Amino acid sequence: MKSPTATFLVRAPDQPGLVARLAGFFYRLGLNIVDASNHTDAHVGDAPRFFMRLVIDLGGLADPKATAELGGSATRRSLEDAFSGLVDELGGSYQVGFSDVPPRVAILCTKDPACVYDLVLRQRSGELPCEIPLIVSNHAHLEPAAESFRIPFFALPVTAATKRDQEQKVLELLRKHHVDLVVLARYMQVLSEELLDAAPPVINIHHGFLPAFQGARPYHQAHARGVKLIGATAHYATKDLDEGPIIEQDVARVSHALSPDDLVRVGRDVERVVLARAVRAHLEKRVIVEGRRTFVL
Amino acid sequence: MKSPTATFLVRAPDQPGLVARLAGFFYRLGLNIVDASNHTDAHVGDAPRFFMRLVIDLGGLADPKATAELGGSATRRSLEDAFSGLVDELGGSYQVGFSDVPPRVAILCTKDPACVYDLVLRQRSGELPCEIPLIVSNHAHLEPAAESFRIPFFALPVTAATKRDQEQKVLELLRKHHVDLVVLARYMQVLSEELLDAAPPVINIHHGFLPAFQGARPYHQAHARGVKLIGATAHYATKDLDEGPIIEQDVARVSHALSPDDLVRVGRDVERVVLARAVRAHLEKRVIVEGRRTFVL
Amino acid sequence: MKSPTATFLVRAPDQPGLVARLAGFFYRLGLNIVDASNHTDAHVGDAPRFFMRLVIDLGGLADPKATAELGGSATRRSLEDAFSGLVDELGGSYQVGFSDVPPRVAILCTKDPACVYDLVLRQRSGELPCEIPLIVSNHAHLEPAAESFRIPFFALPVTAATKRDQEQKVLELLRKHHVDLVVLARYMQVLSEELLDAAPPVINIHHGFLPAFQGARPYHQAHARGVKLIGATAHYATKDLDEGPIIEQDVARVSHALSPDDLVRVGRDVERVVLARAVRAHLEKRVIVEGRRTFVL
Amino acid sequence: MKSPTATFLVRAPDQPGLVARLAGFFYRLGLNIVDASNHTDAHVGDAPRFFMRLVIDLGGLADPKATAELGGSATRRSLEDAFSGLVDELGGSYQVGFSDVPPRVAILCTKDPACVYDLVLRQRSGELPCEIPLIVSNHAHLEPAAESFRIPFFALPVTAATKRDQEQKVLELLRKHHVDLVVLARYMQVLSEELLDAAPPVINIHHGFLPAFQGARPYHQAHARGVKLIGATAHYATKDLDEGPIIEQDVARVSHALSPDDLVRVGRDVERVVLARAVRAHLEKRVIVEGRRTFVL
Repeated sequence: MKSPTATFLVRAPDQPGLVARLAGFFYRLGLNIVDASNHTDAHVGDAPRFFMRLVIDLGGLADPKATAELGGSATRRSLEDAFSGLVDELGGSYQVGFSDVPPRVAILCTKDPACVYDLVLRQRSGELPCEIPLIVSNHAHLEPAAESFRIPFFALPVTAATKRDQEQKVLELLRKHHVDLVVLARYMQVLSEELLDAAPPVINIHHGFLPAFQGARPYHQAHARGVKLIGATAHYATKDLDEGPIIEQDVARVSHALSPDDLVRVGRDVERVVLARAVRAHLEKRVIVEGRRTFVL
Repeated sequence: MKSPTATFLVRAPDQPGLVARLAGFFYRLGLNIVDASNHTDAHVGDAPRFFMRLVIDLGGLADPKATAELGGSATRRSLEDAFSGLVDELGGSYQVGFSDVPPRVAILCTKDPACVYDLVLRQRSGELPCEIPLIVSNHAHLEPAAESFRIPFFALPVTAATKRDQEQKVLELLRKHHVDLVVLARYMQVLSEELLDAAPPVINIHHGFLPAFQGARPYHQAHARGVKLIGATAHYATKDLDEGPIIEQDVARVSHALSPDDLVRVGRDVERVVLARAVRAHLEKRVIVEGRRTFVL
Repeated sequence: MKSPTATFLVRAPDQPGLVARLAGFFYRLGLNIVDASNHTDAHVGDAPRFFMRLVIDLGGLADPKATAELGGSATRRSLEDAFSGLVDELGGSYQVGFSDVPPRVAILCTKDPACVYDLVLRQRSGELPCEIPLIVSNHAHLEPAAESFRIPFFALPVTAATKRDQEQKVLELLRKHHVDLVVLARYMQVLSEELLDAAPPVINIHHGFLPAFQGARPYHQAHARGVKLIGATAHYATKDLDEGPIIEQDVARVSHALSPDDLVRVGRDVERVVLARAVRAHLEKRVIVEGRRTFVL
Repeated sequence: MKSPTATFLVRAPDQPGLVARLAGFFYRLGLNIVDASNHTDAHVGDAPRFFMRLVIDLGGLADPKATAELGGSATRRSLEDAFSGLVDELGGSYQVGFSDVPPRVAILCTKDPACVYDLVLRQRSGELPCEIPLIVSNHAHLEPAAESFRIPFFALPVTAATKRDQEQKVLELLRKHHVDLVVLARYMQVLSEELLDAAPPVINIHHGFLPAFQGARPYHQAHARGVKLIGATAHYATKDLDEGPIIEQDVARVSHALSPDDLVRVGRDVERVVLARAVRAHLEKRVIVEGRRTFVL
């Protein structure tokens, strides 16, 4: 049987010997690095920043070297404690995920089924390595769809007056179900800064055009300007609406013969694919956010 | 020998029988339609608008039917006169080009050779059906490049104080050389509204991103935001800088590993291909401008 | 209320006056052409061929001109009879579809749910203008999925020995349910020439690579060769497996870091989008097959 | 002033501690790793293979640690000797390039200027970090183009009878000018196995389609089959024509309205961009060839 793996995402100020020290840490423990990539960026803030992703075969925890180096008890906890000490020395920080502890993803939606089906089917086919313990909507509309997949469904209607309350209920659901990631599958509500601060990371999908269009009915504006490309951007939600760090983007070609409704349809297709790619990159612990940028390792 | 062709671009308010009447006009004259496409658009202004491109084999002007229908003298002039009468009846307008009268294109550039070489080489290879009677620059830098292709080169330096004068000289050159189209090949000057009003159509190329970035150093802004796509838009120049009707767009994929300079390089590649496609579409008389949109037939 | 439309797809040997005569036919009847496009191809067989798509507003059948021209009774039947006469004169042929008579599409599948869900959800959202009266599979696996959409599901297992019988049953189902188009949604069976001759048009989807790979496990071969692009081709099924006329193609970018399984996953995504686009083009009566080529008008 | 860098490309059988040992080597010498990426591939041959690219700041050779560790003399030669010893221990191999020793690239061409101009202009603009000491052709046609860039030009006509001799002359030119890489810029000759064995690496560009077409006039075949995409593949030349390891690929969209000549033109555009990207990846020492695959780090 294949051993589980741990994926470490590390960031630190650039300094000599970083790759050597991080890789050496696992080498001394007898733990094999099955995948690694790193990037030093000279364009973030004042000083170069270093980013690294390391995928570690945890089978090596049974190695006597690991037991010896980890103070007599080679567990995930003692491994993390030791690694944490190293990262502190480097002035950095890290996150870790384990392949046998799949992240728990909540889908937030309104009425549009396509994006929800798409995510669930990709999870069922193994493409999205996660669990989907619940679907939350501000409408009852998609309950039968959720039921057909046997995923608990919660309808939490919202008005301007009840928004604060409704968001509290959303947050309670996220906590109670130990949610690690929220995916907005065309959830037609703006999340408050309070919710974003308290919630796990939230990934959103957004149409996108060259040039960009502000205000209402962007597809109609894009049509009125005769654009030849329709795009989509998946990003982490931040309090600045649709200004969060970009994870993935793509476009599709359109022509003058398409109506605004056609543009919407083409846009939806791009959005679904881009959202799925972004969620997968997040679940595989490939995405580091640094300021307004992401590094996808 | 293949006969020359005439390409008519027509626009009119939509009304019953438009295709039949336009096609019937040439049928009665014994002139063959070798290519035709049309589009009715319900999204321009208040009422539907009709657009049609017709490519006519002029060999048929030797047909007695043509002579009879055109008042005894079947010439390009009498053909145009008769067609003009029909289009007036329809409340529309038209343009025409002849395959054996290649449009005359002026290239305006500053110092960057790549875009200039690209356009000239495409013209030489037959890909751009035009003549390039002159290259105009605000620097002497590209004179040897122009000379190597035996294309007359005019250096017209410009400062804020001399801009009005310099543009007058540019206009005189365009008139004297019977220029039908101006292509801005990274000409690093903003053209005044006066020049744009007096000059033939001007095609410009512009970088483009999702989202868009205003202000200086857009590639650096795009880099700071971590975009995953770099785009380019070719459009007709209007007084609203970079807001003219879009002719063609495309993108290329980039990653966090690229520096701002790398993004510039990728952007240049996209810009050259997009500009060449747009110029070709214009030269083949495929582009109708209607308000802020183009229809590329 | 919007009137229904008829879409005519015409092909004929190229000859003077084709556009004029076809458009004139509807003009005389007082029927408005709401969309039209045509293409003359010099590269099919010995002589140029002409292809045209005309979308006609049937509201005009109430016009007295239509009644007069159509022998006193302006019906879809008399319209078709008259049009048929014109096309015969031109030595051509035509097909017609009516916007208020949606084509009936059968989905053939095996066990993979993604492609089936994708097609059904696109139909439900209005993107695919058709009915889906039945889903046929050689396995019972997808019955619950079909049930959840309330679409009748038929499981017809097949072995080498029973193939002939099974195909007869498939054909009976297609006839009984008045099926106009069959879509193979990853149906893992080769259809016999007999079935293809007797069935309505069949659209299939096929992975595709540059270069192409013959034989088993093509994704593994593509991986072994280090391809950087994964593609998909939607085509009409013919007796020459995967050699039928191409309707639509697209690609996605891949890297050396992806395993063969990853390539399969990326390929699936491309396949779904390409299949949906091809089915939509067919349903909108945009596709003319001529020999081994399609013209998508 | 910025210090020069060395780029090491390493391959070895996968084993514990590889990243740690390779990075540790430079760390002990006080040499900073400015960029690094690695990949372990489970799909090459029998056992996993490890690939790594390390970019080293050579400024650190002035560090006393480097002098001490390198036996009293910290030079590029002693650095390579020491590194070579480590790689031997790992059972691997490596290549190295220095940023201040630009590779010398020979362009081989026939008559088509576009690809040659494109490569030279990219080199002049700094996009291709190399020198171009000579252009070799089997025709005199492009001499003026080469002259205009002041690049020595050698015309070596070839017939079936003189092929062996001509290739000997090509090889002598490559040796005499210390050529590190040969780029075939539409050189319309098949290179013999003898030449390929004796020459430095050769990059070629090849059109590509889905499906692939064998034999003469592939664009005409692709047109006859109605393809919707035109592609290009850049690869290392091997004795199996157009079967060498793929470095880069891309496609462009085409329609039924394009003639075979149009397809050729679209194909040329894709080919130029793909070739330039592949050459750049090679010059930046990003490409490792392993069997029939490349790893582009």
